[in-house]
Amino acid sequence: MNQPLALGIDIGGTNTSYGVVDRRGRILAKGSMATKGGSVLEYIDNLKTEVNKVMDEAGRENVIAAGVGAPNANFFTGEIAYAANLPWEGVIPLAKVIGEALHLKVTITNDANAAALGEMMYGAAKGMKDFILITLGTGVGSGFVANGELIYGHDGFAGELGHVIAVRDGRKCGCGRNGCLERYSSATGIVITAEEWLRDRKDESMLREQQGKLSAKMIHEAAEKGDKLALEIFDFTAKILGQSLADAVAITSPQAIIFFGGLAKSGPLLFNPVRKYLEENVLRVFKNKIMLVQSDLPDSDAAILGASALVW
Amino acid sequence: MNQPLALGIDIGGTNTSYGVVDRRGRILAKGSMATKGGSVLEYIDNLKTEVNKVMDEAGRENVIAAGVGAPNANFFTGEIAYAANLPWEGVIPLAKVIGEALHLKVTITNDANAAALGEMMYGAAKGMKDFILITLGTGVGSGFVANGELIYGHDGFAGELGHVIAVRDGRKCGCGRNGCLERYSSATGIVITAEEWLRDRKDESMLREQQGKLSAKMIHEAAEKGDKLALEIFDFTAKILGQSLADAVAITSPQAIIFFGGLAKSGPLLFNPVRKYLEENVLRVFKNKIMLVQSDLPDSDAAILGASALVW
Repeated sequence: MNQPLALGIDIGGTNTSYGVVDRRGRILAKGSMATKGGSVLEYIDNLKTEVNKVMDEAGRENVIAAGVGAPNANFFTGEIAYAANLPWEGVIPLAKVIGEALHLKVTITNDANAAALGEMMYGAAKGMKDFILITLGTGVGSGFVANGELIYGHDGFAGELGHVIAVRDGRKCGCGRNGCLERYSSATGIVITAEEWLRDRKDESMLREQQGKLSAKMIHEAAEKGDKLALEIFDFTAKILGQSLADAVAITSPQAIIFFGGLAKSGPLLFNPVRKYLEENVLRVFKNKIMLVQSDLPDSDAAILGASALVW
Repeated sequence: MNQPLALGIDIGGTNTSYGVVDRRGRILAKGSMATKGGSVLEYIDNLKTEVNKVMDEAGRENVIAAGVGAPNANFFTGEIAYAANLPWEGVIPLAKVIGEALHLKVTITNDANAAALGEMMYGAAKGMKDFILITLGTGVGSGFVANGELIYGHDGFAGELGHVIAVRDGRKCGCGRNGCLERYSSATGIVITAEEWLRDRKDESMLREQQGKLSAKMIHEAAEKGDKLALEIFDFTAKILGQSLADAVAITSPQAIIFFGGLAKSGPLLFNPVRKYLEENVLRVFKNKIMLVQSDLPDSDAAILGASALVW
């Protein structure tokens, strides 16, 4: 008898990754495509074409269902609603349209919840019952696990740590409010900080050469080379993240915080100051107890694994 | 055969309530005593004497175990640690010393977690799987329920919403940090606000007569009579609470927030502005969805019921 397979689809602000996974977490075939560039219907059409290729490669007849991780996706309703980091507006019945396109049963959850499931089943959170997974990419996402279970919340929208107000009356956010964490401590946020500081300050910095077209990677590279302004930008980014994480720790008392996504790849450049500011800001009972862990699953794999974990 | 009974003890910053409860939530005998006024050993001695009276009254032989709710109490270790609102310093093995004094098995948890259990078993949260209970007393406590279970966290210290940083670099807190929510939105916090404003501002107010010896109740009464400064003090207190609750909602997506404790008795004076600021600050997906509910269990009863619920 053939083993059952799951399709995992991770829809990010920039790219969509997908793969066919077996129960043990082996990815048998995978691919990726751009998320942006058209209406949601055009996107679904492309997705159908691309995903059908990997399903054929891995053995379409054994794929029993699909799991989808996407920003602002709701486990209970199957919808994405007002996603600040996706190109589509309003409420979209994502599980339904993908299910009809692929002729599969589809379960969805937000991308960070999916990543948390992936880490719990196959990654750094194996065996943990209480942890926070945080994704630092285009935005900031999070999945909270307590008592060994994902917190979906009453409405299925739990885990929006990217939209706690990190700076009162701060930067305008795509969600319509001001000062959200993800406007500071994401790959997008660190670039905004750098561009603002280059504009408003006089410091010498190798970043000036790339002013106006900076990326998080460029800031990382400058910091690696010892650029003082770049290091200060990392410190500021980490300070706001550490402060917000200290508040989240007070609520859920996690064993670990697992970092995932593009900006998390900066490693010690980010984690050393995050740890410092987290420790400065947590209640005494939590001091020196919370593990900060960088996900060691390859990004696209972890997202695919997490999304596929919804199926089992 | 006699029905089994549970002893519930709620240790507050000011008073300790205790009672003997049956499985259906009937309190057969109860009492209260001051928490302050001596060492922890003197306190335990008094508690032993007083609790023995109510146990004799209800039928000591049927009491199978005790549950204790206390600030900063840890479910896993049985200890209270660095409780900002209790008169005892350091780490105290509370479950052990109370157990030895009363010859009963003792389970402890923080007072707000106990209240959340009480509301879930007997009160406003009956049947809810995802809610936040918040106690507005000497301090601010909270119990978070997700997927129908209390979040204790990895270390048993979850639910410290009173110690999220509500105002960056704000008022000095008993926990050693600055700007904690409970320094603003508790019975203590509203008095601090009033005394500060009376000192620093010139507004006419009937509160001036009681300056230097204000209580939350006096501010409530002045606001009820339409005193403008008192109303503004409630608005400020509610604003900071609403902002912090909006962040907590983003993390756990609750069905309801249940308010409990002295300041919660202010009812609409507090809840109307809390609702306004909560709605202003929550993400769009949560707007007009979160129920704000005032606990309708009598304070001391709810705390006793909650503590006793640990036994079953």
